[in-house]
Amino acid sequence: MRILVLGGDGYLGWPTALHLSRRGHDVGVVDNQVRRHYDLEMGVDSLVPIARLQRRVQCWEEVAGRTLGLYIGDLTDPAFVSSTLADARPEAIVHFAEQRSAPYSMIDRAHAVYTQVNNVVGTLNLLYAIADQDPSIHLVKLGSMGEYGTPNIDIEEGFIEIHHRGRTDTLPYPKSPGSFYHLSKVHDSHNIHFACKIWGLRSTDLNQGVVYGQQTEETALHPDLATRFDYDGVFGTVLNRFVIQAVVGHPLTVYGKGNQTRGMLDIRDTLACIELALLNPPAEGEYRVFNQFTESFSVNQMADMVAKVVPGEHRIDHLTDPRVELEDHYYRAAHTKLLDLGLVPHLLDDDLITSLAQVVERYRDRVIDAAIRPTVEWRRTQSTVSAPARAS
Amino acid sequence: MRILVLGGDGYLGWPTALHLSRRGHDVGVVDNQVRRHYDLEMGVDSLVPIARLQRRVQCWEEVAGRTLGLYIGDLTDPAFVSSTLADARPEAIVHFAEQRSAPYSMIDRAHAVYTQVNNVVGTLNLLYAIADQDPSIHLVKLGSMGEYGTPNIDIEEGFIEIHHRGRTDTLPYPKSPGSFYHLSKVHDSHNIHFACKIWGLRSTDLNQGVVYGQQTEETALHPDLATRFDYDGVFGTVLNRFVIQAVVGHPLTVYGKGNQTRGMLDIRDTLACIELALLNPPAEGEYRVFNQFTESFSVNQMADMVAKVVPGEHRIDHLTDPRVELEDHYYRAAHTKLLDLGLVPHLLDDDLITSLAQVVERYRDRVIDAAIRPTVEWRRTQSTVSAPARAS
Repeated sequence: MRILVLGGDGYLGWPTALHLSRRGHDVGVVDNQVRRHYDLEMGVDSLVPIARLQRRVQCWEEVAGRTLGLYIGDLTDPAFVSSTLADARPEAIVHFAEQRSAPYSMIDRAHAVYTQVNNVVGTLNLLYAIADQDPSIHLVKLGSMGEYGTPNIDIEEGFIEIHHRGRTDTLPYPKSPGSFYHLSKVHDSHNIHFACKIWGLRSTDLNQGVVYGQQTEETALHPDLATRFDYDGVFGTVLNRFVIQAVVGHPLTVYGKGNQTRGMLDIRDTLACIELALLNPPAEGEYRVFNQFTESFSVNQMADMVAKVVPGEHRIDHLTDPRVELEDHYYRAAHTKLLDLGLVPHLLDDDLITSLAQVVERYRDRVIDAAIRPTVEWRRTQSTVSAPARAS
Repeated sequence: MRILVLGGDGYLGWPTALHLSRRGHDVGVVDNQVRRHYDLEMGVDSLVPIARLQRRVQCWEEVAGRTLGLYIGDLTDPAFVSSTLADARPEAIVHFAEQRSAPYSMIDRAHAVYTQVNNVVGTLNLLYAIADQDPSIHLVKLGSMGEYGTPNIDIEEGFIEIHHRGRTDTLPYPKSPGSFYHLSKVHDSHNIHFACKIWGLRSTDLNQGVVYGQQTEETALHPDLATRFDYDGVFGTVLNRFVIQAVVGHPLTVYGKGNQTRGMLDIRDTLACIELALLNPPAEGEYRVFNQFTESFSVNQMADMVAKVVPGEHRIDHLTDPRVELEDHYYRAAHTKLLDLGLVPHLLDDDLITSLAQVVERYRDRVIDAAIRPTVEWRRTQSTVSAPARAS
């Protein structure tokens, strides 16, 4: 299959591109490399060193003998989107190319507006280009479980059958997202659903949980194929961040009571889910939603697991929650559609945490202590995201 | 009350500003005058001549002895939003300042992107300025009944109590909007709801039906106080358009079967609803939604009414529906909250249609026949919106 991976330079986009390439697909990587710019802006860096994108592509050719197409440009530029699709003539597009950090979107007005414009306009340009050039292209779009929020009823996969005053309809599941970033994904979902309806496009919206892990079969083949490992307060996600804290002797920072529960998945399952979606495309005009996670954990459960598995004594600090979210809530979310397609999950175990800790040990001199704590406060309209000095 | 009316140069914004001013409020008008630019772009014009904005304000001072503040600028410019609020120090803001035509948003990619960026970014800038300067400001935001689409269950006012697998929650009503414009309003609603939650803002989202009528008590006082009367295929709304067609002897153009049913209201009720919302503000942190319409009609019912009331023989043409919408559907939408606050509706009657027809008679030499038919097709990604020649 000819596949374009948008955002193919990022934490998940890059391993996805390699995985699909190795599985025999003809893969092109599209990226504006802005993720590297965010690092410069924040004064932080991936724990694991990341090769330049051109070098990554070259290394993959050396290691795997397979060529990746490379398109460097910005989805908010319609001419770039149009020419890229015309050149690559993809049968499917995997779309990771969005600003993906909730705290980044909450820094201030400019970052909120940037996040929503970047994500929404990029996706609109893509929808128009697909409709213009080839409506049969399958758009696999990364959404987020965070779009749903934490309702007091079961979360379903994208749609819910509602019985109301003696009548029944199946409607889009009501969304209660918790950041301007998550809101941008909700906007995207509505826009994509509409494009499928009016132009007969086909799309799979993958509402993904929080991803943990750093190595995949392909990225482990060479250091220049490694993907990012973020642990800072803006881009770091919870489990990866706890492991780094435990290894470097920083207290594990739980936000609030820690009873917040979220769907989680292993990075290798992200790759498997995307491949399953690609191999089982929706019908013409169909917009479908899969909830892409394998297990639910509370923040406290994750902190306890990491504290138990990583050698040494670990303190767990409960910080005032910088976010506005329920700290105690009901959480049960359906996630059977990908299992029905054949997903065999990697469940979270001690070995995964140990292997993550080993990665951290190897690069612990690169950890910037000052970057670990949260710096962005939801209740403020402006947060100072200082560029921390590198720890000695 | 100190009130800013954003979009105060438009079809509804201007009469709202006058009405609130006459009722003793201290009113400022904010507008970038882009609505006049759309006319230039389309090659059309309001049926009723519209004075320049500065002249309108001056005329109101002459006629009513009351001063309107005037702020000319663009909400997508955060510095303008910030300085306007700092200067006017409003207690409430009525926000009409959005691109409000569904067909305009569906012309092509550029117009879709413009509509969503303009509407979403303007509102985001406003939310940040309110949160920064005075979170107690009551934001009265114009939404649309079109956000809901036509679900097969009753439409409630913004939220719905859902019983699901033995549990219950009240969640945002699921939205199925029918154009990139309506989508932008859905995006706004989600963003405003979130801003109320995190910053304690207070907002009323008025999901308005299709407005008909052209005169209000205040606009009737002087020709330079008149508001717009749009009848073209892009900005004209259904009832006003039928009246013009009937007067000039053009067939009444019903899109599709004409069983599409929509909530409607008289322009004078728009003003009354906004005043009721202002006089009964929500609590701090509260986001509430009112469905702002008074009656539901099918397109066929409206065409029949107009054909009956306007003298002469009238043909009704059923055009292929340029939109993607259900032509037969269930429609029942709650609209009790504004009635509970005291709204006494002007229901649609023959007199209103007759008075509209009289306005058309007065200006019938200004009608551009070629502008009446729909030019924008939802199923295409690009429509040609030609600049029609003025009829002799």
